[in-house]
Parts: sequence; structure tokens; C-alpha cells
Amino acid sequence: MDPKALDQLLPFVLKRDNVARYEDGSVYIGDRRKYPFEKEFLRCDDVEDVARAIEDMVTQGGGPWVAAVFAMVMAAKRVEGKPLDEALDTLRKAKLRLTNTRPTNTAMARRLDDALRIAEKAGTEGLPIGQAILNWIRRTRDKVYENYEYRARLGAGLVDDGDGILTMCFAETAFILAMAFARQDGKNIHVYTPETRPYLQGARLTAPSLHELDIPVQIITDNMPAYVMSQGKIQKYFTAADLITLDGHVCNKIGTFQNAIAAHHHGIPYFVFMWGADPRSPDRASIKIENRDPAEIRACRGMPTTIDEIDAYYPAFDITPPYMVSGVITMHGILSPYDLKRHFGVA
Amino acid sequence: MDPKALDQLLPFVLKRDNVARYEDGSVYIGDRRKYPFEKEFLRCDDVEDVARAIEDMVTQGGGPWVAAVFAMVMAAKRVEGKPLDEALDTLRKAKLRLTNTRPTNTAMARRLDDALRIAEKAGTEGLPIGQAILNWIRRTRDKVYENYEYRARLGAGLVDDGDGILTMCFAETAFILAMAFARQDGKNIHVYTPETRPYLQGARLTAPSLHELDIPVQIITDNMPAYVMSQGKIQKYFTAADLITLDGHVCNKIGTFQNAIAAHHHGIPYFVFMWGADPRSPDRASIKIENRDPAEIRACRGMPTTIDEIDAYYPAFDITPPYMVSGVITMHGILSPYDLKRHFGVA
Repeated sequence: MDPKALDQLLPFVLKRDNVARYEDGSVYIGDRRKYPFEKEFLRCDDVEDVARAIEDMVTQGGGPWVAAVFAMVMAAKRVEGKPLDEALDTLRKAKLRLTNTRPTNTAMARRLDDALRIAEKAGTEGLPIGQAILNWIRRTRDKVYENYEYRARLGAGLVDDGDGILTMCFAETAFILAMAFARQDGKNIHVYTPETRPYLQGARLTAPSLHELDIPVQIITDNMPAYVMSQGKIQKYFTAADLITLDGHVCNKIGTFQNAIAAHHHGIPYFVFMWGADPRSPDRASIKIENRDPAEIRACRGMPTTIDEIDAYYPAFDITPPYMVSGVITMHGILSPYDLKRHFGVA
Repeated sequence: MDPKALDQLLPFVLKRDNVARYEDGSVYIGDRRKYPFEKEFLRCDDVEDVARAIEDMVTQGGGPWVAAVFAMVMAAKRVEGKPLDEALDTLRKAKLRLTNTRPTNTAMARRLDDALRIAEKAGTEGLPIGQAILNWIRRTRDKVYENYEYRARLGAGLVDDGDGILTMCFAETAFILAMAFARQDGKNIHVYTPETRPYLQGARLTAPSLHELDIPVQIITDNMPAYVMSQGKIQKYFTAADLITLDGHVCNKIGTFQNAIAAHHHGIPYFVFMWGADPRSPDRASIKIENRDPAEIRACRGMPTTIDEIDAYYPAFDITPPYMVSGVITMHGILSPYDLKRHFGVA
């Protein structure tokens, strides 16, 4: 599908330029902390601004890598005219700073490596580094959106007329498009989105995005999925993933795992939208789970949920074992989680 | 244990007079919506005030029945001197209004029936009805607290040194006392309390209550229990129940069920503190689950979590099947959920 036509199908937060864009020397990031209450962009004037924005969850899911590679463009434009060694050294430092913002997000880390390679190549060839990264981003992004569309069509094919669908957090473009395609195909669906505490991505991003596309959706709190399943209201469970190991462990937003246990208990299949498995992550032990600031658990949109002296614990992701995963929706098809190494392992 | 000594052991919200009390013609209810931010009491001047307070979740768990029977005292005092038929008719209407506030709370319904019987007996014998109900409440409450203490000691016996303990919502006096007794017995414990959306009873009531007693406690969000279990941090799961059927189905705050599925998956035993099974509830089909206002899901302590036009779904309770329940901690001991009918079924 033509990029513009695809963008038309997408809700506000997922339209290409609303995720993140480079404009007049700055990076503008769609501020997902404020959506859907306000539709604002955060302007970042240097790499540190972008790094902090990613750490502060201004964007998440498929957003950080886009913001991060645009930050590399910004850094490259700033050092144009400097000796190549100095320029590349600055970019290497930028890459390190950006990679460290979300240790679990290996997709961002890989793309930053790619951006650095593009910079090194352009620099060696005497070409403008910033423009080279920018051209590479545009090609990469087009490919990513084609990939979203392909996987969304596979996902839509898994949906039956009348299905109740559970998701978690904000499964982004592939999932939202899959629901849109299922509707276009004449299937009636009803989506349940757990609110996804503490950042409420389900309530703030997933539900308004589906609502914008006229897809029936209801928010539930994170303690409800199993009960809704027990009522027979859920037929499929779909999420995205932050990373999948070569042996099929799915690392995603905290809560994904307990929904998967409940789905498994109720005989409901669980499908994961993901480009593929991470060749650097062979198994469960290789996953580094990010623990975030406990203070975030003691508040909800800035409103305290308890008193300050109470301790809290905030692991941001969890791990679902492969035997609970019915299929990984990739560019190679809907794969068994036990067959990922053959497709994505480094030979 | 002497009532005053027991009260000393309890945290603020659970001390007898802080739950609800009758004073100078009014009922004062400890406002659990405001705790722990404010320690306030809501003054109710008639039955309708108390009914609305219960509907508005001013109190919950073990609180509603106390507030409701004190409301019967208030109603009875008002009709003193009227003809008996008229007085009892007023009390019957009061009972109906109060019973309808929380259809799932059959313990409150039974106590209101008892209060009405006390009123009828006193009225027939020409005794002051209000005082008769008040005397009955005092005896009943002493018995209830003795019962809490007995069950708490049984619960404390299930705790091993070094245990990580998961709970849900606010399991009230028996659970909190069990943790206090386990500590008194020299056992090191660490409690994880899911915040329990949308009303945050875990964050607002359970965690501050345990913290007040110097018991190590951490709040987690409702999407975390399974992951915390998978880390080996949880050895026991304890909750209270709103009702247990004669065939062992546990109806409790939404989320209890999915934690029980996760506990079962991880081989963690699940124990329920409850006076016993409800003889009026033979099986799962006899449970009426209360659906509450979806608007409550779209906010957290009054702060919107999404935009108004998004639909939400709010079942307030869920049902855990008996095969996931390791024991029901009652006055008859730690019973198998499959042996409740023999103890609590009407002959």
C-alpha cells in the first residue's frame, strides 16, 4: 500500500510524522504521555534531550528507535565540517547514550548500530553524514511500515467474525492495522484493552486509537482479563513484544505474562506481532528486565495512589514462555515460537 | 485476647470504633476513600445516608455490615414510641434499602436479617428496640473479633520464616492480624500488595496498614503478580472473600481469580480467610456479580485515565474455582473447599 494511503488508515498517534520527525535541526517527538488529553510534540534540540525524552516515556513501543535515529541525524548535522574521527567519536557517544535509555529495547540498539555504520560509510566516502542517515531512515521506515502492513494482514486473517479480542499495553501499528483490516473484511470484533498501569498505555493509546477507527473497544483494569475470559468474552489474545529470544520467550510490558497464563488456562490462543526474534538474545537468561522508579507505582497521572513512605516495586516487563505462545506474526509468516532460531538466528 | 488489647494490635482503619460507630443518634463511618491521605469519618444522619455511603464505597469488606446494622439502630431509635407494626415496617424498609446497596455482600444481608429478628423479638416483648439491636451488635462484634483472632492464628501458622506473601484488595482484620502474629512468632515476611484498581484498596488500605505495624510491604500494580511469582518471590497467596459458595467457589474482588490462576501455575498455595460458606449460595451459578459504573474505570482518584468517550467495563468481583483453593481458614479450621457443605450447609 502507498505510504500516504497507509497513513490515512492509521490513528493520530501512529501516523508517521506524529511518532517522531526531524525538522529544521530539531527532533519533534509525539508526546504520548499527554495523549489523548493533548496532542502535543516535544521539541528536542540535542541528543541529551532525546535521551531524556525516551527515559521519561515521552514515546514508547515503536517510537524510541525513530526518535533515537533522528537524534543521530541531529548529532551528525552538528559536527558537519569537523574532522571525521571527531565527528564519528561524537556519534559513537550519542549512540551509547541513546542505547542506555531503555536497556530492554534491543530493536532500538540494533537500529542505532545500523545508523552508526551508515555514518561511518558516508564519512569514509566523504558524503554528508546527516543526510546519509536521513536517507537511510526514510528507506528503513518505509520498509518497517510495509512490514507492519504485511503482518497486520496475517493478524487480520486470524480474527473470526464475532471475536472478542484481548490486548495489552499499546501493541502499535501492526495490531491496530490488523483490527482495521479485520473490520474492512466485514468481521465484527470487540476489543478489551487493560489500562496497563502505571503508564496507562492501554487506556490512553490503544483504546482511543481503536475508537478513532470506529472499532468497538472497552477499557478494563489490569486485574480483569481472566474474569472477562471466564465469561466467554475473549477468543484471541494479541500483543506486540519488546523482544523475543531465539528460543521463543516473549518479553513485553508487565502483565502480558499473567494474561498469557490466563489465556492458556481458558484455551485462548495468544499471538505476538513482532518483526522476529533477536539474534543477540538466545534464551530467557539473556533478557535484562528494566526496573523503573518505584515512585511511578505510587501515583497515577501524577495523582498519589498511596502515601509517600510506602515502598513499591516496579519491574517494567515480564517474560512469557514459548509454550504459551500460539504464534509469532513475522514477515516469514505466523511462526511457531519454537522455530524462530532457524529464521532469525545468526548462521 | 481482651478486646482492648486486640484493638491495640490493629492498624488505624481496623480499630473497632474506626470502622463504624453509633454516637448521639448518628452513624460515623471511617472514610476509607480518603484514607491514608486523611483520617476522616462520614457522619450519617439517616438510613439513606448510610446506604449511599455503602454504595459510594465509603467503607468496604468487613465495614458495610457494621455500618448497616448501626443504621438499623438509628432507624429503631427514631421510631421509638410508635406502634410496633409501624416501627417494624420502617425497619423492614430500612433493611431492604441497606441490603440492596451491595448485592454480592450476603454477609451483610444475613446480619441485617438477624438485626430485624432482634427488633421483632424486642418489640414483641415490649423492650426498647434500638437498645436491643445495639446490645446484639456489641455481642456480635466481640464474637466477630474473637473469630478474626482465631483465624489469624491459624493463618499465621501457615506462614514460614522468609515467606514472600501475595494478597489482593484489603483482606482486613484476619489477614492483617495473621501477618502481625507471624511477625510476633519471629518469622521474617515480606508482603506484596497489588494496588487493586479502580479503588486502590491494596495501595491505600493494605499497604499502609501493614506499614503501620512495621511489616515489610511493597505495592505492585495489578499486572505484576505473576511476574513476581516467576521470580520466586512469593510462597503463599492469602485473600479474604466476599462470599464462598457451599461447593467451594470463592467470590472476591476482581483480580483474585487471575492471581489464583498464576499461583496455581507456579505451585503457590492459595488460602482464603472467611467465616465460612454461605448456606444460601450452593454453587457458582448462584453468585450475582455486581457490575459497577464504567466511569469509575476511566479515572483514578478522580484523575481521568482516558477521554470520556471511551467505553469501559467494570465487573467488581470474580470467581475462583475450588480446585485453585488450598484451604479456607474458618472457625472450624483450615478446611478443604470441597468440605464446606458439611460444615456450613443448612441441615
